[in-house]
Amino acid sequence: MPDALKVGVAGLGTVGAALVGQIAAQREALAARCGRRIEVVAVCARSKAKNRGVDLKKLRWFSDPVALARDARIDVFVELMGGAGDPAKSAVEAAVGAGKSVVTANKALLARHGIRLAALAEKHHAALNFEAAVGGAIPIVKTLREGMAGNSFERIYGILNGTCNYILTRMEQEKLSFAACLKDAQRLGYAEADPSFDIEGHDTAQKLAILASLAFGTKVDQSAIYVEGISSIAPADLAAADELGYRVKLLGVAMKTPQGIEQRVHPTMVRKDSSIAQVMGVTNAVTVDASGINPLTLVGPGAGGAATASAVLADIGDIARGVRTAPFGRPSDKLKAVRKAPMQRHEGGYYIRLQARDRPGTAAAIATRLAEQEISLESIVQRHVEKNRVDGKAGSVPVILITYATTEDAVRRALAAVTRDRVISGRPQVIRIEKN
Amino acid sequence: MPDALKVGVAGLGTVGAALVGQIAAQREALAARCGRRIEVVAVCARSKAKNRGVDLKKLRWFSDPVALARDARIDVFVELMGGAGDPAKSAVEAAVGAGKSVVTANKALLARHGIRLAALAEKHHAALNFEAAVGGAIPIVKTLREGMAGNSFERIYGILNGTCNYILTRMEQEKLSFAACLKDAQRLGYAEADPSFDIEGHDTAQKLAILASLAFGTKVDQSAIYVEGISSIAPADLAAADELGYRVKLLGVAMKTPQGIEQRVHPTMVRKDSSIAQVMGVTNAVTVDASGINPLTLVGPGAGGAATASAVLADIGDIARGVRTAPFGRPSDKLKAVRKAPMQRHEGGYYIRLQARDRPGTAAAIATRLAEQEISLESIVQRHVEKNRVDGKAGSVPVILITYATTEDAVRRALAAVTRDRVISGRPQVIRIEKN
Repeated sequence: MPDALKVGVAGLGTVGAALVGQIAAQREALAARCGRRIEVVAVCARSKAKNRGVDLKKLRWFSDPVALARDARIDVFVELMGGAGDPAKSAVEAAVGAGKSVVTANKALLARHGIRLAALAEKHHAALNFEAAVGGAIPIVKTLREGMAGNSFERIYGILNGTCNYILTRMEQEKLSFAACLKDAQRLGYAEADPSFDIEGHDTAQKLAILASLAFGTKVDQSAIYVEGISSIAPADLAAADELGYRVKLLGVAMKTPQGIEQRVHPTMVRKDSSIAQVMGVTNAVTVDASGINPLTLVGPGAGGAATASAVLADIGDIARGVRTAPFGRPSDKLKAVRKAPMQRHEGGYYIRLQARDRPGTAAAIATRLAEQEISLESIVQRHVEKNRVDGKAGSVPVILITYATTEDAVRRALAAVTRDRVISGRPQVIRIEKN
Repeated sequence: MPDALKVGVAGLGTVGAALVGQIAAQREALAARCGRRIEVVAVCARSKAKNRGVDLKKLRWFSDPVALARDARIDVFVELMGGAGDPAKSAVEAAVGAGKSVVTANKALLARHGIRLAALAEKHHAALNFEAAVGGAIPIVKTLREGMAGNSFERIYGILNGTCNYILTRMEQEKLSFAACLKDAQRLGYAEADPSFDIEGHDTAQKLAILASLAFGTKVDQSAIYVEGISSIAPADLAAADELGYRVKLLGVAMKTPQGIEQRVHPTMVRKDSSIAQVMGVTNAVTVDASGINPLTLVGPGAGGAATASAVLADIGDIARGVRTAPFGRPSDKLKAVRKAPMQRHEGGYYIRLQARDRPGTAAAIATRLAEQEISLESIVQRHVEKNRVDGKAGSVPVILITYATTEDAVRRALAAVTRDRVISGRPQVIRIEKN
């Protein structure tokens, strides 16, 4: 058996600590599976004193991650510090620049600098693996990179942020407000003190940018993504979705269109009987539509120390077995710039909830504006409820419209006209329906 | 770029033809993804005249698969003939014996001779890849072999036979009999003229034997599997399952127990809100419970030319990229013999449907027999229906029992006693409940 593969781990949070423990616990199985022992020999973290529940006594300790990355006595540098900038960036550059393979769970770094780092890794014949960066334990990177190497992709979409899915699940199941569920998520540690990165969809967008590159052979480009978060979702939307046979999920969607690659993150109505609609709580899921495969869905834990560590460890295992795959599935110089399909050209069905003034002619006025944009309606529900009871607004009734396939542009123009007509109060709520 | 990888394909049914077409269609993407062109150079099939919808004119034609397997001008032998015996077996042996890598979709061959063929491939440094043998396009072999290389597995279970799932789905959704749905499945080409291999669970067992080996590091051993098919499932069971919050699926289950590895194939009640319960029609799914991952579920097409071909092509792609993984995840000499957990020791909840004689004391007699075996009941439902209307039997009422966790042995003894007591008519229906 060849020499052990020597691993240096930078970042000893829950994932790093779980990884060190898992490598020790699986020592023999890993050696059998990879043909080579895997050993953590050095670590880097801020506090040496902190008890992390794993034995670190025999490991060399670095306070500078770049020094660990350059250390001649490691073969693989594992980056679990996070963040798009330094020290993660300079440490990964130092490692691949020295021909060392790198495993990282850092979606932000990959979304920002992925292609440049991939080129550097390819130049130095180093692996750059990042299964844990998207979907936690779900092996979606390997599936796109290797398991579907012979497929042409039509669409990839997923629930990529556990915080948002947890909030939407609680709102739906317990009929609670967004604010109440967010507060609970924060109390339970599922949401950050500043939750905007998650709930405004930016975390999902970073992950989607990586998946789109793997599926479509394009350069990672987060700026090409249209992003909308979940903070405007109201219990009324979830109740209406339920009645109509849908659930609301925050999806990241990348799809081939005649205009180019459409990439978008927004709350989405998905059919209740689809695999992805069953995904509750902090669980993640990814669905792929490809040639001959309609669809393939992978569901699993998107976060958590042990789950994320298992993805990191699989990446290390591939390196131990000598596998070197181009980080984004193709050599970085073969990845094309994204031809971005503009969001205004998005085609699909729409859910629209309006608070209409309860007076004669309102419904006709709304219907006329939609017809002007050639939007056909699959259903229209107007509920006459007791006055002064609807959202506290006197003299208004909720109207829920479901459109047949139309364009984003048409919907926006129609709703701008409806708003100008002063037949509704407040902002129209719009949720796109994803065919699945 | 290195020379093209030259592929010989034996078997030109729907999968083989789709594969030839897909390799041609994806020529450039494959070369970019694999660092090497992939070319089909020779094929073998019975009829040269048949129109298969793909261009075979430039390919060399073999009538003997063993001759193709030995041909010096191919690098990879793709076996798509099927069957546990010859010619598939001798052709695969010839190929790996000559140091050629093999890709096969042949579950029967692997279930019977997998370990021996793996040892032969390892000896000759050839790859033996078989993603398509289990779950069609679902990348479950790669996930177990590589994507979860650092995990310790607790349980793996799945819907592995599209025919059975199609029949159960139709029975449930349209309240039809087993016989009627089987007939339809045959008419639509989802079931064979002799359907027993599928409906009696043997197809599922072959696939489960392969998955269990990959997950638990054991030798493939189909004989260690307890097998029960779906032909006894009645619409009454599906209706009762629905009321109780379950669906009935034919599952293959392999799990670690204190007694060893339990491997079983049988109709199973799964919670309606689980990912696997949503899997309808001919779709397949596999769920894995492993350290830190509870659970990971993969759902996708289990059959079909294009879907199966895409799995075969991913295997070929790995070979093109130079990847050589031990076929069953570990060197074949490190695979242990299965320590078989006896089915009598199986623990879990049970659904029991009895046709009880409608006279005083019956319920007490049944309850006593269950209590004697220390079986606790979660629920008992006895429906008094109009006489002569229940299954055409006069003076009997259906009784449905749900037990708390107990053992197979206890249930069998209790039901034997109930039968001896002559308080029921017909055979008791028993369906195991899978915790998920």
